[in-house]
Amino acid sequence: MQLGINTVYAIGLLAAIVAFIYAVYLALWVKKQKNENKTIERIAGLIRDGAKTFMRKEYTVLAYFVAGAAVLIFLFLPKPLWAEGVDLNQNLTMTLAYIAGAIFSAVAGTIGIMVASLANARAAEAATHGIKPAFLIGFRGGAVMGLLVVGSCLLGVIGMLFITGNSSMLLGFSFGASSLALFAKAGGGIFTKTADVSADLAGKVELGIPEDDPRNPAVIADNVGDNVGDVAGMGADLFDSNIASMTAALVMAMALDGGKGKIGVLSMMVIVYAALGLISSIVGILTAKVTDKGGPTKALNNSTYVTTGVFLVLTALATLLFKGFEWRIWGASAVGLFVGVIIGLATNYFTDDNAPIVKKVAHASKTGPAFTILSGVSYGFMSVLPAMVGIAVSAMVAYKLCEPLGGPGYAMYGISMAAVGMLSIVGMIISNDAYGPIVDNARGLAEMGGLGEETIRVADELDSAGNTVKAVTKGFAIGAAGLTVISLLGAFMSEVNSALVELGRTAEQLIGFDVMNPNVFFGIMVGAAIPAVFSALLILGVDKNAQRMIAEIHRQFKEIKGLAEGKPGVEPEYNKCIDIATTGALKELIPAGLFAIISTLIVGFIGGVNAIGGFLLGNIISGLLLALFMSNAGGLWDNAKKYIESGNEGGKGSDAHKAGVIGDTVGDPFKDTAGPSINTQITVVSLVASLVATLFINFHLF
Amino acid sequence: MQLGINTVYAIGLLAAIVAFIYAVYLALWVKKQKNENKTIERIAGLIRDGAKTFMRKEYTVLAYFVAGAAVLIFLFLPKPLWAEGVDLNQNLTMTLAYIAGAIFSAVAGTIGIMVASLANARAAEAATHGIKPAFLIGFRGGAVMGLLVVGSCLLGVIGMLFITGNSSMLLGFSFGASSLALFAKAGGGIFTKTADVSADLAGKVELGIPEDDPRNPAVIADNVGDNVGDVAGMGADLFDSNIASMTAALVMAMALDGGKGKIGVLSMMVIVYAALGLISSIVGILTAKVTDKGGPTKALNNSTYVTTGVFLVLTALATLLFKGFEWRIWGASAVGLFVGVIIGLATNYFTDDNAPIVKKVAHASKTGPAFTILSGVSYGFMSVLPAMVGIAVSAMVAYKLCEPLGGPGYAMYGISMAAVGMLSIVGMIISNDAYGPIVDNARGLAEMGGLGEETIRVADELDSAGNTVKAVTKGFAIGAAGLTVISLLGAFMSEVNSALVELGRTAEQLIGFDVMNPNVFFGIMVGAAIPAVFSALLILGVDKNAQRMIAEIHRQFKEIKGLAEGKPGVEPEYNKCIDIATTGALKELIPAGLFAIISTLIVGFIGGVNAIGGFLLGNIISGLLLALFMSNAGGLWDNAKKYIESGNEGGKGSDAHKAGVIGDTVGDPFKDTAGPSINTQITVVSLVASLVATLFINFHLF
Repeated sequence: MQLGINTVYAIGLLAAIVAFIYAVYLALWVKKQKNENKTIERIAGLIRDGAKTFMRKEYTVLAYFVAGAAVLIFLFLPKPLWAEGVDLNQNLTMTLAYIAGAIFSAVAGTIGIMVASLANARAAEAATHGIKPAFLIGFRGGAVMGLLVVGSCLLGVIGMLFITGNSSMLLGFSFGASSLALFAKAGGGIFTKTADVSADLAGKVELGIPEDDPRNPAVIADNVGDNVGDVAGMGADLFDSNIASMTAALVMAMALDGGKGKIGVLSMMVIVYAALGLISSIVGILTAKVTDKGGPTKALNNSTYVTTGVFLVLTALATLLFKGFEWRIWGASAVGLFVGVIIGLATNYFTDDNAPIVKKVAHASKTGPAFTILSGVSYGFMSVLPAMVGIAVSAMVAYKLCEPLGGPGYAMYGISMAAVGMLSIVGMIISNDAYGPIVDNARGLAEMGGLGEETIRVADELDSAGNTVKAVTKGFAIGAAGLTVISLLGAFMSEVNSALVELGRTAEQLIGFDVMNPNVFFGIMVGAAIPAVFSALLILGVDKNAQRMIAEIHRQFKEIKGLAEGKPGVEPEYNKCIDIATTGALKELIPAGLFAIISTLIVGFIGGVNAIGGFLLGNIISGLLLALFMSNAGGLWDNAKKYIESGNEGGKGSDAHKAGVIGDTVGDPFKDTAGPSINTQITVVSLVASLVATLFINFHLF
Repeated sequence: MQLGINTVYAIGLLAAIVAFIYAVYLALWVKKQKNENKTIERIAGLIRDGAKTFMRKEYTVLAYFVAGAAVLIFLFLPKPLWAEGVDLNQNLTMTLAYIAGAIFSAVAGTIGIMVASLANARAAEAATHGIKPAFLIGFRGGAVMGLLVVGSCLLGVIGMLFITGNSSMLLGFSFGASSLALFAKAGGGIFTKTADVSADLAGKVELGIPEDDPRNPAVIADNVGDNVGDVAGMGADLFDSNIASMTAALVMAMALDGGKGKIGVLSMMVIVYAALGLISSIVGILTAKVTDKGGPTKALNNSTYVTTGVFLVLTALATLLFKGFEWRIWGASAVGLFVGVIIGLATNYFTDDNAPIVKKVAHASKTGPAFTILSGVSYGFMSVLPAMVGIAVSAMVAYKLCEPLGGPGYAMYGISMAAVGMLSIVGMIISNDAYGPIVDNARGLAEMGGLGEETIRVADELDSAGNTVKAVTKGFAIGAAGLTVISLLGAFMSEVNSALVELGRTAEQLIGFDVMNPNVFFGIMVGAAIPAVFSALLILGVDKNAQRMIAEIHRQFKEIKGLAEGKPGVEPEYNKCIDIATTGALKELIPAGLFAIISTLIVGFIGGVNAIGGFLLGNIISGLLLALFMSNAGGLWDNAKKYIESGNEGGKGSDAHKAGVIGDTVGDPFKDTAGPSINTQITVVSLVASLVATLFINFHLF
């Protein structure tokens, strides 16, 4: 069957609309659930307000940033306004595309967070009736986020293509989404860990009060953090990866399909696959439920496998049916998906408390915190191997599979389709991921609302499933980002070549980046240092901010009479802690973000496109390495602490436990602030490079 | 003036002989110094015996390894014995070159360690007379090692060239040195940190007895560790880097000079520069003394600056004098040296306790050990930037400087000469470095021998200078290794091209490694994961081994009556601890070393030379990143602890101090086991790749 572009748009649009309708249905379903406990509702309200405060402040700051970037884009991109043959319209479209990308990402995040903060109270209340109803509320609340994010990705990409018909504009759109994600993930990450670390250290360790105790002034901030860091941040991150992978694939597809303006069968394949991925996620979400035989972890995992299977079958059918859909490309995306699952399982091996590694770290903790750290760092380093090898293998297989279709261009397109394949189930992944903070909040509400031991136990079980699945989805997200940025490197080269052709310099066409070229090598070395410094700035941000918040907690316990003793009616000043977390997060994230973007520009204007090619490569390698290390080490320490807490190696209060808490505190900003933000940092840098490619060609020192 | 090859050999030989004579003079001078305190001599004898035990066991294990590798080399290299046109003589020469490299390295290390363990007791005794005489003994003891190592490097390289006239044989010689260094550094590193960590944790922290207390069963092992880890290990490491940098330069020089057998002016330049570097180090060593105005740190730094200056002047004179010595190449080596100094200073900024960073980490420790770790990790990450940028800039400048001489081949040769320049002062660096463990031992002996408060204070001052300088030399060593491995990448390409020409496949000649080539990319990703896993294996080795030793210390304190109370005549069983450290170190280092070598072979036989080119690049990038991070973070924690101990942030016994001790314990295997071993791992992998290049060309899967 011959596909027309309008049919493809229709398929994409249909999938997006179905997703939106289903999201609205789920949101209404969540809202309808019982929510009668006044205490819980009051606390949930506090959390909701805290989240709103943070989002409002964050978006205000980001609005300035976006406005500034928009002005620069208008002045310089795709061509400087004073350049020869500049088309004002193009610059305007690019600017609008950028703004649209930022807004799409912000809206999806905000709605998701609002639904999540409705779901938490309801899940807590449902937990009094057992695990099944509570699981469903938590999961469906998360699914709203998943469906909205993936639906708006698809809608945005189709809209951009339809309106502009130009893949460069997609880069602008993607950059809008990325620059928002960078700040949402990094800012949210600093917020959530500031609160978490401070609440734990000042509350659990120093004062000896339980987790989620309402006397702790940081407890609301901690729960707000789960929402702004994990729901909104992770959503923005995966929104960004998803858009970026589609953009990279489309940039290369359009170049192969016959130039920037032409949408041929390769481009159609990208959209159709993405639409089928969304449909598969919906099917997966529909099947998620806790059965009598399996717990919540099994339910989450099963629905992921269902999504994967459905995607493979649907895309195979499409490949069978539509003319020009090559099996080799289907193979590439299947390989991507397969490797994604492998990476997830490897992550699980290193971070799950039923696997041996967590037990080893817990055991080492008996000798003291230094050994908790040393063994965690070591296994974190080791955990890098399977993911890196997995990405290496999938890139190579996808390349070799698709090369026979017409040379290296097709081969690079094949890699981008492996990334699209890996990200096809992203709707499902986000749902699983957003489930975590909802049930984590529910656990907190159950405790603060005094719902009793049994309910807390149910909430604990739901929470623990969230943690396990979170480690896996995080590994998956990093793997997907890895393939995505590799294809962004391909997209960058494709953009550079288009620009060179436009400038009439066809003889110079790049065929790749030679490591032995001094500019490439220079870029590689500098690029490799960037993620390290970026992570350092974020971790120090958490560090500094937590010091401030701990001082505030100490002050409140000293100055507010009756607080420590838990006198009825005495309440800490929760807002002070939320304020500290918010202000600090915004203050600390700006330098990190600017550092990444400005170094890209410096390297590009020093060494030109070759240096930037190297810079991207160095950035990808060291970024993946550090992101995997930090995410996995963090997850490992978290679960080692929980493993000790559940009565092993001396249990709660033992020396091993104290060491475990220190490990967990170190791991918190690793896994929830720096690690996942590196993904976004790489994407942002890659997109900046592609956007500014023409300028780098024209102006560079060496 | 026209230089002949025999004149060049004569210059090199003369420099080596002068160095040997001076080393013998210094060794005899050290031996002549007063050594009358019986207690000290007895303990120093224990340390010497412990070192001998370790070296004997280590070399026995290594002899098996070297024998096995020699058989493989004989069978396969340069061509498999059953290949067409194989020359049995060549294979035999290569095997002997390999064995010679290993033996040279082992002999230099052993003599150095023996002199160092004579110097420690004498330095302790001299410390009763003040800082000046004690400094001189410590420094001259270290200088013996420095002179021996660099002299035998030069002698070995000249000998190989003279006997075989073939640069490939140099690769074999270099691989012999490297494979020994890998095990010496890694094995010594595991030994020293096992002992150090266990002595500290079980002694200082748990039992509350002072450092270097003779009641501690691990105290002798700790002092032995300083010798086998820092003196022998660091010596082998720099021996290896030095040989490798000369080898890489010579491989490329001979290819440019007209083929493998031809030694032209470019090759002569390498030898002359290396000889002048050695002469400069001798001048530097001659000038080292503590004046009334400056302390020992200043004395060490000044002599480094003297060496640098003398080297620049001498090489400028040579360039002026000798025909064909190009100023551009002199410029490249000057840039290398200059950047080396910059990297050293940057390292100093991040690790010196007079600079702000150490104070910040000490301050963060007040909030608990998690913040010690988090801030140390963050600043460790940041410290990567100046070194990476420095290496990037020096490689680019050297390339661009030398490219006009005749294209990319000359440009890569320029980079290798930057590495030779950076390593020119290596004699001085090793002297400074070996000074550290000698005075560290002297401090221990002063305490155990009861030489009194004032002597301990003097020894402390000498020790502290050693620590400061050690951090700088370590940064320097990593920087030098960075440039060396870049030039080894060039040497690898040069070898591949020679092999292709020999195989009659000139049309295939490599011009570089294109990142967009799927095999290269595959190699990069896998190569980047190797240093992480390698480090993890070493750190876990320390971790496991320390657990065993701590258990042994506990046992001794429980079972040996009167030990804890310090009853006269009761002595712990020092040898048990030495045994544990030795056996464990040898057991743990083998998997790490084999892992690195075997992964190189696997990647090469899967993806051919392109994959290996990428593999080396990935290895270099992630290796440098992790080595810099771990060395600097470790140095930072060490000094932060010392800063607290000197009375800041609450001083000894405060919570900040406890946190500082935990940071230091984490940092120990970072900075003294894993960090510096990565250097050697990269060199070994690069050399294996070059040696096996022909096999990879003929046999690979994809």
